[in-house]
Amino acid sequence: MKKIAHIETEFKDKFGVPRQSRLLGTSTGRIVFEKEYRDESALVGLEEFSHIWVLWEFSKAKTDAWSPTVRPPLLGGNKRMGVFATRSPFRPNSIGLSVLKLEKIEKTKTEGCVLFVSGCDMIDGTPVFDIKPYLPYCDSIPDAKAGFTEGIEERLLAVDIPEDILEKIPQEKQQFLIDVLSGDPRPTYQNDETRIYGFEILGLEIKFRVKEKLLTVLSAESVDALKKD
Amino acid sequence: MKKIAHIETEFKDKFGVPRQSRLLGTSTGRIVFEKEYRDESALVGLEEFSHIWVLWEFSKAKTDAWSPTVRPPLLGGNKRMGVFATRSPFRPNSIGLSVLKLEKIEKTKTEGCVLFVSGCDMIDGTPVFDIKPYLPYCDSIPDAKAGFTEGIEERLLAVDIPEDILEKIPQEKQQFLIDVLSGDPRPTYQNDETRIYGFEILGLEIKFRVKEKLLTVLSAESVDALKKD
Repeated sequence: MKKIAHIETEFKDKFGVPRQSRLLGTSTGRIVFEKEYRDESALVGLEEFSHIWVLWEFSKAKTDAWSPTVRPPLLGGNKRMGVFATRSPFRPNSIGLSVLKLEKIEKTKTEGCVLFVSGCDMIDGTPVFDIKPYLPYCDSIPDAKAGFTEGIEERLLAVDIPEDILEKIPQEKQQFLIDVLSGDPRPTYQNDETRIYGFEILGLEIKFRVKEKLLTVLSAESVDALKKD
Repeated sequence: MKKIAHIETEFKDKFGVPRQSRLLGTSTGRIVFEKEYRDESALVGLEEFSHIWVLWEFSKAKTDAWSPTVRPPLLGGNKRMGVFATRSPFRPNSIGLSVLKLEKIEKTKTEGCVLFVSGCDMIDGTPVFDIKPYLPYCDSIPDAKAGFTEGIEERLLAVDIPEDILEKIPQEKQQFLIDVLSGDPRPTYQNDETRIYGFEILGLEIKFRVKEKLLTVLSAESVDALKKD
């Protein structure tokens, strides 16, 4: 398997990464081709499609041995399902599959043609193996039976960001941050109301607490400024 | 990339293989896991899904060098498109992506749990890399823009099979054969009305001719019988 490209996203570490693509339209990214595959003609016709499949590597979730069962976060983390009945990253072959919205294709001076996408659910720098057009006449099956995910809604949190903290975030990124926080970026299955959690996003170290269904942001400090201290 | 399974289909060679999955509901197959991955618990919960993604290897369409453009059969074979705007098998990484209907999961004596599927568009024996559940809430986008495939309908042929030939085909396979023939199994872009074409399917060597939009079957001889001659 050759790495043909990598995807740049806002997720510098695994905390905050949405658990499926498409759920986070505000999660934008760029797909940059490796030099060997930076051929404009390989993209001819792609701009006419609204969505693409991206096949990518679960590069941060590799395991030596595969486990036949996993515990999906959607089920609260206490029920085991067969790995092939889930989209878990811990599988025999570390390939992820995401449908992304293709916002535009832009020719750049230093990186060739770059794909601008939204709906990203990969960590920044994730290797990409393949890009295919989304074909609604064969890929879209609205009435497919969704198994254990049927009727289960993602448990979203309410998010409170004090005004003085919100001001530190560029306006066009504020909704993205709210979306990420509402997805509950705590390490899976932790629920300690007194604990202060932290993770890095948008160049900021975000600190927050979660009480019942409300997430409150406590601080947002520039990572660069923190490094200087 | 590890081969975790292989898929058994009716397509012994590339002629007759439908150009996308799902278009041929009568095209059934079996996914048989390799011994190392023959673990029943890896499938727990999968039976509750109606459709699965299969990631597989274009094992018969390997190329040493990749070409940035291909000529999609859907466009008559005379227009070049970027490889990433198509589902062509000739791509940097030889991975195919198909959504199949999961008909049933059956525990067998000698092969472990076998997945019975329909909508197959792979050659018999194709290696399988991964199986994932189809999640309609993120995978189904009915109104996605279909690019150059928009509004293009597969050019189907009318099929005429004389009664005495049809009788040689098991009744439950007759519609499948008609579906395959209507998809035009001639080598791409050939259109010689006087030529007799032949290919093997269902253990029969089928001979046919195509005149305008009508395919007429001329003979169907058992492959085993032919070998004896």
